[in-house]
Amino acid sequence: METHDHGLFAEIAERGAARAATDDHQWVRGMLRFESALATAQAELGLVPAPAAADVASVVDDLDHDLDGIDPDSLGAAAAAGGNPVIPLVQRLRTLLSDESARHVHQGATSQDALDTAAMLVARDATSAVLGALAAAGDVTAALTRTHRRTPTIGRTLMQQAVPTTFGLKAASWLRGLDGAYRRLARVRENLPVQLGGPVGSRGGAGASALRLGELVAAHLELAAAPPWHTDRLPVADLAGALGSCCGAVGKVAGDVVLLAQQEVGEVREEAPGRGGSSSMAHKQNPVAAIAARASARRAPALVAHLLGCMEQEHERAAGAWHAEWLPLRDLLRTSGSAAGWLADCLDHLVVDADAMARHLPDPVPALDLEANDVLIDAALDDHDRLAR
Amino acid sequence: METHDHGLFAEIAERGAARAATDDHQWVRGMLRFESALATAQAELGLVPAPAAADVASVVDDLDHDLDGIDPDSLGAAAAAGGNPVIPLVQRLRTLLSDESARHVHQGATSQDALDTAAMLVARDATSAVLGALAAAGDVTAALTRTHRRTPTIGRTLMQQAVPTTFGLKAASWLRGLDGAYRRLARVRENLPVQLGGPVGSRGGAGASALRLGELVAAHLELAAAPPWHTDRLPVADLAGALGSCCGAVGKVAGDVVLLAQQEVGEVREEAPGRGGSSSMAHKQNPVAAIAARASARRAPALVAHLLGCMEQEHERAAGAWHAEWLPLRDLLRTSGSAAGWLADCLDHLVVDADAMARHLPDPVPALDLEANDVLIDAALDDHDRLAR
Amino acid sequence: METHDHGLFAEIAERGAARAATDDHQWVRGMLRFESALATAQAELGLVPAPAAADVASVVDDLDHDLDGIDPDSLGAAAAAGGNPVIPLVQRLRTLLSDESARHVHQGATSQDALDTAAMLVARDATSAVLGALAAAGDVTAALTRTHRRTPTIGRTLMQQAVPTTFGLKAASWLRGLDGAYRRLARVRENLPVQLGGPVGSRGGAGASALRLGELVAAHLELAAAPPWHTDRLPVADLAGALGSCCGAVGKVAGDVVLLAQQEVGEVREEAPGRGGSSSMAHKQNPVAAIAARASARRAPALVAHLLGCMEQEHERAAGAWHAEWLPLRDLLRTSGSAAGWLADCLDHLVVDADAMARHLPDPVPALDLEANDVLIDAALDDHDRLAR
Amino acid sequence: METHDHGLFAEIAERGAARAATDDHQWVRGMLRFESALATAQAELGLVPAPAAADVASVVDDLDHDLDGIDPDSLGAAAAAGGNPVIPLVQRLRTLLSDESARHVHQGATSQDALDTAAMLVARDATSAVLGALAAAGDVTAALTRTHRRTPTIGRTLMQQAVPTTFGLKAASWLRGLDGAYRRLARVRENLPVQLGGPVGSRGGAGASALRLGELVAAHLELAAAPPWHTDRLPVADLAGALGSCCGAVGKVAGDVVLLAQQEVGEVREEAPGRGGSSSMAHKQNPVAAIAARASARRAPALVAHLLGCMEQEHERAAGAWHAEWLPLRDLLRTSGSAAGWLADCLDHLVVDADAMARHLPDPVPALDLEANDVLIDAALDDHDRLAR
Repeated sequence: METHDHGLFAEIAERGAARAATDDHQWVRGMLRFESALATAQAELGLVPAPAAADVASVVDDLDHDLDGIDPDSLGAAAAAGGNPVIPLVQRLRTLLSDESARHVHQGATSQDALDTAAMLVARDATSAVLGALAAAGDVTAALTRTHRRTPTIGRTLMQQAVPTTFGLKAASWLRGLDGAYRRLARVRENLPVQLGGPVGSRGGAGASALRLGELVAAHLELAAAPPWHTDRLPVADLAGALGSCCGAVGKVAGDVVLLAQQEVGEVREEAPGRGGSSSMAHKQNPVAAIAARASARRAPALVAHLLGCMEQEHERAAGAWHAEWLPLRDLLRTSGSAAGWLADCLDHLVVDADAMARHLPDPVPALDLEANDVLIDAALDDHDRLAR
Repeated sequence: METHDHGLFAEIAERGAARAATDDHQWVRGMLRFESALATAQAELGLVPAPAAADVASVVDDLDHDLDGIDPDSLGAAAAAGGNPVIPLVQRLRTLLSDESARHVHQGATSQDALDTAAMLVARDATSAVLGALAAAGDVTAALTRTHRRTPTIGRTLMQQAVPTTFGLKAASWLRGLDGAYRRLARVRENLPVQLGGPVGSRGGAGASALRLGELVAAHLELAAAPPWHTDRLPVADLAGALGSCCGAVGKVAGDVVLLAQQEVGEVREEAPGRGGSSSMAHKQNPVAAIAARASARRAPALVAHLLGCMEQEHERAAGAWHAEWLPLRDLLRTSGSAAGWLADCLDHLVVDADAMARHLPDPVPALDLEANDVLIDAALDDHDRLAR
Repeated sequence: METHDHGLFAEIAERGAARAATDDHQWVRGMLRFESALATAQAELGLVPAPAAADVASVVDDLDHDLDGIDPDSLGAAAAAGGNPVIPLVQRLRTLLSDESARHVHQGATSQDALDTAAMLVARDATSAVLGALAAAGDVTAALTRTHRRTPTIGRTLMQQAVPTTFGLKAASWLRGLDGAYRRLARVRENLPVQLGGPVGSRGGAGASALRLGELVAAHLELAAAPPWHTDRLPVADLAGALGSCCGAVGKVAGDVVLLAQQEVGEVREEAPGRGGSSSMAHKQNPVAAIAARASARRAPALVAHLLGCMEQEHERAAGAWHAEWLPLRDLLRTSGSAAGWLADCLDHLVVDADAMARHLPDPVPALDLEANDVLIDAALDDHDRLAR
Repeated sequence: METHDHGLFAEIAERGAARAATDDHQWVRGMLRFESALATAQAELGLVPAPAAADVASVVDDLDHDLDGIDPDSLGAAAAAGGNPVIPLVQRLRTLLSDESARHVHQGATSQDALDTAAMLVARDATSAVLGALAAAGDVTAALTRTHRRTPTIGRTLMQQAVPTTFGLKAASWLRGLDGAYRRLARVRENLPVQLGGPVGSRGGAGASALRLGELVAAHLELAAAPPWHTDRLPVADLAGALGSCCGAVGKVAGDVVLLAQQEVGEVREEAPGRGGSSSMAHKQNPVAAIAARASARRAPALVAHLLGCMEQEHERAAGAWHAEWLPLRDLLRTSGSAAGWLADCLDHLVVDADAMARHLPDPVPALDLEANDVLIDAALDDHDRLAR
């Protein structure tokens, strides 16, 4: 039965490139690319005949350009028999190869090798989208920091007006959060590992080349080489933690925008043409982007908890905890992309009202320590400039 | 950009009728049915001209049979402007009506009225699927309880053999969990409330008929009447808690099956033709259904936490916490249906090996208290028979 | 090594009677009362000599008045040997009895019977505290509803001013949430079950009296009779869900107070002598009670998720998932009591500024539908009056 | 009212040095040490008279050796007035100083500076305990890996016997998880930052020395220098993520031990004198340490989710989300220490039964790829040896 999924809520809750980067086709592509890289690496080590590997690589390359021949829904349906979609995918791949080549596909590998590697490839593309959005949000925030370096505004603690500060310093604090989250995620992204273990994690059949084989497969896929991690889920936990931090940093900024945009405060507003109206109140101007960023960001903690809770995986492959990772990992990548993307959009359309800020200052305005203000701001801006991207 | 979603993992992680019952079309149908019921009820109270209401009802009825004219993806895309898909849906609906009828659509209502009511309609259908699967699982479990009423088996505590009991009593314990979860969810399902508050929850415009209007709309939709609950999210929390309990009860049984099916224990096995094979180990027979049930069930706690965490909703409508409910509520309904459905399937194909059980008993087998055994079993079976379905 | 625990943060994060009701001594008392009730019930059924039961009851009664002889820390230390504190407690209890009586203590029971029953007794007392605080908060809220029945105020949606409503209706919405949470928790409290299963949940040894024995023990402890639920954790899930709903309802109200108390809004403020100051800003008046209520409430969702996640318990007693319930259940009871207690305190000291509300209304003020307003308010107040307490 | 807390469950659920390292006294010590380091650093920069700083340092040093004069419970009680315990602590500290010195205590600082810095100091000591336990567990695991390098055992996937591997390789997989978690936590520990921002995060009053002042305070406390992070909670998220990974790695190993220790499998057992008995079944030998490790480990994911969920902190200091961090952070540190400590204990008493392993192998035993086995094992052992400790 066909199910129409997610489009209705996608623009609010799963906006941006991370969604497409994690869709079924990308997972299928990832699994196929694993099989190709494996055969190629095995051929390089003399473990598989070179023509068979070339054949696999060629067929996978064709499929990579046109996945029409492989329907995710039928793979999914067939997955019920064995518990994962790799088994029917490999069967399908074999039908596209000569008998001799088919014999060498997936040689020494296990379903989890293909699926975990696909997850990392999908995560790499999706985290690129998240990082891109974080960087965009950071750049606008850095510009706000510069522009409002010395714009006085009231600091607020415990949701009460406290003593004055500058909007530049407030923006610098946002910037530190966004850049810190960027750095954490970028580091995790650089270390996303290939999975290669074979049926029980022993890389049996590769002999003395066992490490070398992993390195070659990793190199072909531009992933990090690593020992098998079938039931050692630190790579998933790393992703979860870094994405959780991203959403936390995004949620903080989006929350502040929502608070500052209250009419009674009125220190910022979103001005995006054609956005922010209400079905019943024509005069309203809702900060839709900040709200959607916040809504997307707040899905993260539970997803992180779920993925961490899946770390207790039995023996050489888990009976459920592994399968329970797939959709939540996808959801976490998507919601992080959506959160960061909406925040970038929000900040891009943010109008800052320095006059409103001035109205909330005590009279007389106490002197600010502008030297301290400037060194903290400069440090944040320097740090932002140093972000390698 | 089109995104192909979920089919790849759907048979493992989101199996069963709850998936289709929660798809985009059903949400759209639910929102449309809300508009129809509202106009009808308003006409009954003289708040809307009867012909306009009839017009709305007729157009909605047509759409209910053929949703082709309303594409969820374009609603979703349009939703970004206002923060939810109701605004574009109402606009679209109005284009299908006469100008006079169009003026009376969505009268006095707000987006959240339509979307929350749709959520409850969707939840009603999806929980039917969950309850059906729980009932099926319970029936098989009751049969197991009867068949193995006095089949001796070793009780196990702290994952160590303890003292003997019967497999019937073990099954009766499963049954109590499944039936208890069934009762909790059925009670919540019976009380799923309509949402009707208008822009700020005051049902403004309905005057002294404010309560009556709510009752009529509820009656038309066969939901419970209730005061507005825009930012009082107990109905969502109730659903979350009951679905969490279902998944907990399912996970317990599925976990036991996985443990009992270990070859070293071998007291049960799943025998489903064409299922349970391995991509790399031809001799294996994996308890796929129990594993998928467990994987589905364990997604629930984090989703429940998320929904409970969304209860702090600001003022008369929340800025993010409401939007953050949509997909997780859908996910929770689906994963519950998948868990219960897979468990029913698992139990339906369960082979119990009483000889293997006998081999794990101490020698000599201590006398069992069969009187106590029987009264506990009879109580569980009686309780099961009393389940109104 | 002695550890000084929790006092430093207790007044903020674990305020109120739920803390003392869940401390170590109460758990010990609960376990002892279980042993007494069990022996008494067994004597009533002729399963234990009456003098032995009387002896146990008498010694437990003495200990109930003076627990000095039983130090929780040494029980805790001894618990490491067997995995729970019941084993050393029963040993200790036996030393206080004659040899003949000692033989009949804990007869047919298992550690989990005593500890789970103690948990339910502790939960009963702690939920009393939560309910008391919720009722107090509800009473003040009902008074606010009456007083401000027609006080106009601006409704706010998506954190933006929308259209006018009344503060009475806003308070009525709070009241519905608090009362709804009260009802849910009260119902769970009335059904807290005794635990009685023996080593593997079969109540072996009680014969045809197996059900009757459970009923008698339950009656002595004023708990609900129930079949064994060693690894069917619905009673814990019920508690978790209801407490989660309480915290959700509390957090919503506390969050609104924090928002309304912003100086820029200024529609309410907490006025509690000697409270709300700042270490560095003498002029500030922080809504400390609302903040503490919110902080306490928001701990709940994760604790609920944890307890639901513990429902997959193996076989006849779990190897870890049961042990993992103890402290989180305690934490959840405490944080719920703290949340409700702080909210009652907050509302008790809440000053409502109708003039400030008036300043935020549009000019001219649109006519309110006061009929609808009144029927919704009356319904909420009637519902509150019907709360049996 | 005095509350007796946690001792009853402490040996199971909060075992080890992390508990004492996080108790109330340590938090008080941490706050005092912050005040001392701040005054000292300010004196070094000429912002505070040197004698006043010396006075503060001396009084704090005295208190550090004897905290009797400062009772956490009364600080806690006084905390209710202002929302945190720093205000009364600073007041108390001032009473111990000359008027002149008292004027310079806490100069330019805010409560959150002292409390967050104390949290980092407490976390540093507690994570030392966690790391120590992880290292001990890793060392035993490395020894198991060496001893059983080529001991054949059946690999198990989806809880079914698959193909043979070696117990050495299984232990090497545990080792990679434990060492990976160690590295992640050690890196976070090295970067635990001082908090110093003043009332609104601007370090106002320090002028051009604003950065230098932070560096000096950090140096005195041996923490990392950092810009203010009052509402940028990445440091807390880092801790949470790393501790969550530790618990995940521990839970995996403990779970495997529990599974392998089932009598029907019997490939390992815990042999610790005087441990593992049952209150009702004298013959049982429960793997108590593995069970307690598992129980402790599984508390982590929910606590991590909670802490990540607290990252949305408003403006310059949060109204609740900050306060909600304190106890859960403490709980997470403790449960991590308990998990790692119990696992080290478990592994220390683990008896491996190679004969039992042999009995579960297929007949004839297929040839293992011992070359691949050895290179994977050597890589894990080399990696372990490189762990800087």
